[in-house]
Amino acid sequence: MNKKVLSIGLAVVLGAGYSLTVLSQARPEVAVKQRQAVMDLHGKYMYGDLLPMGQEKRPYDANIVARDVGFLDALSKMPWDNFTPATKDVKSNSRPAVFSDTAKFKEAQDLYQGEVAKLVALTKSGGAEAAVKPQILAVNRACNNCHETFREKL
Amino acid sequence: MNKKVLSIGLAVVLGAGYSLTVLSQARPEVAVKQRQAVMDLHGKYMYGDLLPMGQEKRPYDANIVARDVGFLDALSKMPWDNFTPATKDVKSNSRPAVFSDTAKFKEAQDLYQGEVAKLVALTKSGGAEAAVKPQILAVNRACNNCHETFREKL
Repeated sequence: MNKKVLSIGLAVVLGAGYSLTVLSQARPEVAVKQRQAVMDLHGKYMYGDLLPMGQEKRPYDANIVARDVGFLDALSKMPWDNFTPATKDVKSNSRPAVFSDTAKFKEAQDLYQGEVAKLVALTKSGGAEAAVKPQILAVNRACNNCHETFREKL
Repeated sequence: MNKKVLSIGLAVVLGAGYSLTVLSQARPEVAVKQRQAVMDLHGKYMYGDLLPMGQEKRPYDANIVARDVGFLDALSKMPWDNFTPATKDVKSNSRPAVFSDTAKFKEAQDLYQGEVAKLVALTKSGGAEAAVKPQILAVNRACNNCHETFREKL
């Protein structure tokens, strides 16, 4: 799929002024693009800020952590309803197991969302750096846990 | 840019297990991809759910509205720091005015974020359907206001 096709898809999704509900729900390519968008943004905040702080590769900044964890809270809930059976044959980095082993996929999602929820609770209650950092690493392990089984090796 | 190049970019952003801070902040293509990701997800929730409800093209569902407005609250804060001068020459739908008329661009962002903030406040306080719907339309007008000047015609 070249950029032109992607751009047309984007134009379809973003075309304003009238309802595109049916269209945007029906098109598997759009669903894939949207779930990939979540992963891109997860990358921005997790790999761009949080993980380097958790790994002590960058100075800890409680304000950035609070902001990013708030974003992660929203992002962590967004991609799952885009993994519809209709997207099974759209080229992406999802492995077939996403669609064949849905129980295990759900389990991996729940593990990840549980770790994010703990991180959210920690930062909302003003958790200390010493408590937040290991929880950032726990979220990252839950990301990797899901990717190991359900994402193609990059 | 074809899909392979995009995939390589994605692989770079999502490569886990070590810090990519410098890389992800330094690469203009990644910054563009991330801000486009925000717009894709805005499309999912705004054009997929909220606007059709605001326009009475789809039955109003207060639970979906509350969820989506929470997502919009986060998304509305995400794209702006990706419009860096370094991204000026990366192919995208941004018009040159984004980088040449930064004061007006900021004004359009503030208008949009103000309307989203009103929508967030309304839904958090359990605002009635009759109050929420026009505010959804106000958010949409603020989207379009910015797009008119700062986004290429799609």
